[in-house]
Amino acid sequence: MSVKRIGIFTGGGDCPGLNPVIRAVVLKARASGIEVLGIEDATSGLIDLDYRSPHGNRWLEPRDVEEIVGKGGTILGTSNKSDPFRFVVEHDGKREEQDVSDRLVENCAKLGLDGLISVGGDGSMRIAQRLIDKGLRIVGVPKTIDQDLGATDYTFGFNTAVEAATDAIDRLQDTAESHDRVMILELMGRDAGWISLHAAIAGAVHVCLLPEIPYRIERVVQAIRARRAKGKPYSIVVVAEGARPAAGEASYEGPRELGKMRRLFGAGYRLAAALEPHLDVEVRVTVLGHLQRGGSPTQFDRVLGTRFGVAAVDAVLAGKWGQMVALRTPDVVLVPIAQAIAAPHLVPANDPVLKAARDVGIVFGDE
Amino acid sequence: MSVKRIGIFTGGGDCPGLNPVIRAVVLKARASGIEVLGIEDATSGLIDLDYRSPHGNRWLEPRDVEEIVGKGGTILGTSNKSDPFRFVVEHDGKREEQDVSDRLVENCAKLGLDGLISVGGDGSMRIAQRLIDKGLRIVGVPKTIDQDLGATDYTFGFNTAVEAATDAIDRLQDTAESHDRVMILELMGRDAGWISLHAAIAGAVHVCLLPEIPYRIERVVQAIRARRAKGKPYSIVVVAEGARPAAGEASYEGPRELGKMRRLFGAGYRLAAALEPHLDVEVRVTVLGHLQRGGSPTQFDRVLGTRFGVAAVDAVLAGKWGQMVALRTPDVVLVPIAQAIAAPHLVPANDPVLKAARDVGIVFGDE
Amino acid sequence: MSVKRIGIFTGGGDCPGLNPVIRAVVLKARASGIEVLGIEDATSGLIDLDYRSPHGNRWLEPRDVEEIVGKGGTILGTSNKSDPFRFVVEHDGKREEQDVSDRLVENCAKLGLDGLISVGGDGSMRIAQRLIDKGLRIVGVPKTIDQDLGATDYTFGFNTAVEAATDAIDRLQDTAESHDRVMILELMGRDAGWISLHAAIAGAVHVCLLPEIPYRIERVVQAIRARRAKGKPYSIVVVAEGARPAAGEASYEGPRELGKMRRLFGAGYRLAAALEPHLDVEVRVTVLGHLQRGGSPTQFDRVLGTRFGVAAVDAVLAGKWGQMVALRTPDVVLVPIAQAIAAPHLVPANDPVLKAARDVGIVFGDE
Amino acid sequence: MSVKRIGIFTGGGDCPGLNPVIRAVVLKARASGIEVLGIEDATSGLIDLDYRSPHGNRWLEPRDVEEIVGKGGTILGTSNKSDPFRFVVEHDGKREEQDVSDRLVENCAKLGLDGLISVGGDGSMRIAQRLIDKGLRIVGVPKTIDQDLGATDYTFGFNTAVEAATDAIDRLQDTAESHDRVMILELMGRDAGWISLHAAIAGAVHVCLLPEIPYRIERVVQAIRARRAKGKPYSIVVVAEGARPAAGEASYEGPRELGKMRRLFGAGYRLAAALEPHLDVEVRVTVLGHLQRGGSPTQFDRVLGTRFGVAAVDAVLAGKWGQMVALRTPDVVLVPIAQAIAAPHLVPANDPVLKAARDVGIVFGDE
Repeated sequence: MSVKRIGIFTGGGDCPGLNPVIRAVVLKARASGIEVLGIEDATSGLIDLDYRSPHGNRWLEPRDVEEIVGKGGTILGTSNKSDPFRFVVEHDGKREEQDVSDRLVENCAKLGLDGLISVGGDGSMRIAQRLIDKGLRIVGVPKTIDQDLGATDYTFGFNTAVEAATDAIDRLQDTAESHDRVMILELMGRDAGWISLHAAIAGAVHVCLLPEIPYRIERVVQAIRARRAKGKPYSIVVVAEGARPAAGEASYEGPRELGKMRRLFGAGYRLAAALEPHLDVEVRVTVLGHLQRGGSPTQFDRVLGTRFGVAAVDAVLAGKWGQMVALRTPDVVLVPIAQAIAAPHLVPANDPVLKAARDVGIVFGDE
Repeated sequence: MSVKRIGIFTGGGDCPGLNPVIRAVVLKARASGIEVLGIEDATSGLIDLDYRSPHGNRWLEPRDVEEIVGKGGTILGTSNKSDPFRFVVEHDGKREEQDVSDRLVENCAKLGLDGLISVGGDGSMRIAQRLIDKGLRIVGVPKTIDQDLGATDYTFGFNTAVEAATDAIDRLQDTAESHDRVMILELMGRDAGWISLHAAIAGAVHVCLLPEIPYRIERVVQAIRARRAKGKPYSIVVVAEGARPAAGEASYEGPRELGKMRRLFGAGYRLAAALEPHLDVEVRVTVLGHLQRGGSPTQFDRVLGTRFGVAAVDAVLAGKWGQMVALRTPDVVLVPIAQAIAAPHLVPANDPVLKAARDVGIVFGDE
Repeated sequence: MSVKRIGIFTGGGDCPGLNPVIRAVVLKARASGIEVLGIEDATSGLIDLDYRSPHGNRWLEPRDVEEIVGKGGTILGTSNKSDPFRFVVEHDGKREEQDVSDRLVENCAKLGLDGLISVGGDGSMRIAQRLIDKGLRIVGVPKTIDQDLGATDYTFGFNTAVEAATDAIDRLQDTAESHDRVMILELMGRDAGWISLHAAIAGAVHVCLLPEIPYRIERVVQAIRARRAKGKPYSIVVVAEGARPAAGEASYEGPRELGKMRRLFGAGYRLAAALEPHLDVEVRVTVLGHLQRGGSPTQFDRVLGTRFGVAAVDAVLAGKWGQMVALRTPDVVLVPIAQAIAAPHLVPANDPVLKAARDVGIVFGDE
Repeated sequence: MSVKRIGIFTGGGDCPGLNPVIRAVVLKARASGIEVLGIEDATSGLIDLDYRSPHGNRWLEPRDVEEIVGKGGTILGTSNKSDPFRFVVEHDGKREEQDVSDRLVENCAKLGLDGLISVGGDGSMRIAQRLIDKGLRIVGVPKTIDQDLGATDYTFGFNTAVEAATDAIDRLQDTAESHDRVMILELMGRDAGWISLHAAIAGAVHVCLLPEIPYRIERVVQAIRARRAKGKPYSIVVVAEGARPAAGEASYEGPRELGKMRRLFGAGYRLAAALEPHLDVEVRVTVLGHLQRGGSPTQFDRVLGTRFGVAAVDAVLAGKWGQMVALRTPDVVLVPIAQAIAAPHLVPANDPVLKAARDVGIVFGDE
């Protein structure tokens, strides 16, 4: 069966490089005679055909994507709340979860969609697999700013995020050095520390704490003091949001009273609270947060996003449903979605980049 | 009496543009046959001649400043703890404040310094005035990233800080729009809202809260809802660290238990806590913090710093002690230090930039 | 007579900051109940109502300008060929100039425009004055990237251009130093050398050649050799496109055969040709060209453009026709257009910024 | 035999990422008890032990490389004139080439160097191989900004160069669109078009001309006209410096009279000269030149340079002389130098990135 119409949506957190993917899909598909429906706010536009947001369900033409290659975010909008198998609806003032996946499948038929391109992370790929199991035809495009997907060498967004983090470290160096301070920079990475690891090398920081390597606070103190002893009273510490002290280490989790706001008492502040009693220099914390997600994608992510978008349409044309595009340098290949989501890609103990970081003297707290 | 030797030091928080000042002072003074002692960590190097930091007291030559025009921070180091009239010393395990200003004056004589150039903010200028009253010969160079000094059109550092803030807003726009979120960005400015005001215009934000204009939370909520009603579910809110609700407004100051760490529960998070109950969209907070201070100075701040440095040496050569350099566009002029520190320069109700901001629809919360 | 409809157009070369002006005009005018026609490609859309370009004559609403504050160029398009008094038309295969100003005036009436806002440089302001003399009601907004208009402290675009030039110098420093080369950077500025002067200070270059200061090649050679003698074999030279050798100096104007292409043999290459015989190091030329005009405007230019746009509508509301907005720090004021264009603003011999540049050792070739 | 002393030098054109390599070599080697001699200006410091440049032969310690990770260029200096087998010496006023390789070998012994790390491109690797053949022990680190070495997935400098090129395209888009112009951007790449290819995708240009794909001018004209027909009067054309018209196409090589200066009449201007007669819009040329080489390396190049530096010392420690480090994502491996320089890595007709570029509609002139 030939393909005449496809839909594309972007799910999960926004990520620099999504727009290049959308652009490439539209340009390649239209040149191949395929219509492309841009679906709004992840799957929201498929669950409810009357759903209206500024991002809008709309048939996309080349002129709609002419100028978006350098724009951050996603012109389709995204959402963290559009799992069709656990869709939250309000009913009589109560919120409850419903499985609306049948409706989604039905709506695809109503719209005449012959297939879907799902651009998203781990969660989106799991949903895609379940929809495939229900009979939908889907090609996946991996999106994870944390780079925690093993099936591909790189995902777009990661390069831009590390660049933003490195720029932040460069800025903090100036002020740390002028004031003889310890500057802590908290970066993204709940489970995978790739952003922190790469930024730590690029920014030439002194200590780097990762989710994969539980740290001992004593070792961090020692590293800062050793610098001081060499006449360098300042230090830069990068800490991934998921970094944690080793078992047995005291860990201050922030005041219980904070409740929902406790989330702001993250890895950076907890580390500062643990460090301060041991040091006689000032400790300052910066949380980079959303500044890592926004901004114009780097050329690397624009090229990668474009290649992924083109490859996704190639997969559609070849009828390779159920597959996800992936980078195996220098090629873009296809891997089964089911296989891609099998296990997260964390920093292994023998990772070559980690080894290089240790070799230039970065302390990880487990030494 | 001709001047043969001067000292220069930088006090208060670091600020992009300090190095261009130092460079210009050294180049101009050396070309005029004057020796220049770079004094370390604000006045620390004058209070204790045996004080040793990596910044070091040292005689500066052109080669030492050849490559620093684009470098953030200050090669002399700075400190917030070097008020010679209230110098903190440890004595038998107890910390007490001493007046060591006599020693500072004496050390200037020992070093053969004929005068000083003090680069600093409000606090540094007050100290300079008291040292002048004790007989020292000082020329002042104003340094305030917040732009809160009325005697000069601009101070260096401000331009770079607003550029960093605008870049952050540009990044947040992408992610706010993709997720239909309210993004709050907290910027520097305890008493003066100039950074927030300028960045708000440059970043085309929707709400801007300043220390000078107490805000009503209801008005902020209304502005966000009005955008939503026009099909724009996202909003960007800039809030200066010193912004406060109007009298009578409920104000959540953060959990008491936080103690010293309560400082992190700043204007941005307090605003988020106050807004969230009234909105059904997600609210996210970013605190730009030290990222505003670091980084390479913009060309504007490099030029201004260079002009200030040259003018300070001109003042030394002309024997204009007790004066501070200031920009009265397009000229650099001299004003008495005493006059310069008389009153802080806050955003007045009839400020023309504030008016322009209101005219393009930015909401300040007092409407 | 109350104003109900105005038109706005942008003339001359494009310039970062034009879009903030357009945005502010639309926001302020619409909030004041005035309709705004965006006129395409300078006055082209007024000369020919059937003229069609992608920029299009169109009635502008806030949603059209929502996202343009950070975008370079002008959404209205611009043109260097739309002087209605010397409009080039093709007639029987021949090009001839016609005065079509009557038609322009007539079309304004047809469109129901009560007044115009003309955003442009020297040339545009002269045209505006002649149209005013014919009875049109016009408010001017100055636009000159070269900063060569005396009536205003700054024009938008200048700040962005100097930032781009400074960034280029920073890049050239690295490569000049690594290779011990003389790097020449040609910057914009046919008559006025402001961009080169400011960038020279900000980039800490060694030689700076301006249109206002005829240079002697021997002096430039000497400056480069003096650096070499001090152990610095590399030098950076900034040269404005309008810089010329002093009378009596040999000047190589490039090969005659080049014809139209001779324009590429500009000030930078001519200087290189004159320098090379005297030096035993490599000389390399970079022409920054259009890279100075493009790119997102700096915050300074966004704020200035916004203030100018708002002030232009204020002038319209107050019936201050024939006036041009101008910055007299810290205020935006009105000056008669006729007065604004009286004389170009060149770098005077006693300019304070020029003096500062000489004081930090920059050589201008007239020493 | 254990290694106690090594020398490191950087050859060929400078390249962002060289300093991270030097830094990593010094940190790793010193931590392994090996002394490191920084050799000045490529092999100049080995050919003449009395050679004195500001880069200086010097024993490097961690403190010397503390702050260089983000600095462009090379702190060791480089040179294009230091081939010891064809070393240019002046003798009785005449320049002649000499083979001074024996002296170089001898000097290595005098300095007590047990081995060398040569960081350079194709030419440097050929020299390294000849020195190895004479008995020297050398490990190679590949450096080619053009990415024209097949043995490694990426070389450092390439990523930074493409980022600079993409930034330039982003800037030109604004001005091209405002003026309805054809903007030509000439990028580096004499034999290999990788920089142009990647920047073309990242910048979403319309035409891209590569050294590997001879172009027909008619096809370029047609592409520009086709855009015009669709209501897009502007176009962006990227052209690599080595791009050439197909055989049989007229090619204007620039005026003969230019002599040495003819080098400036490069691919961009030649293309403009060929295009202009066929178009009725303005054509403008920008030559990015040295701006691609300078500037702070991107995080990608900092990480890659660091990994290469560490791997080179690992090779030294393991006695893997005659090998070159190379990236085989995600690993850094060793390949014999002799093999690495066998054939240049050009863009093949079936390259997957080239295919993606064609798929998003970029015209290469051979269609």
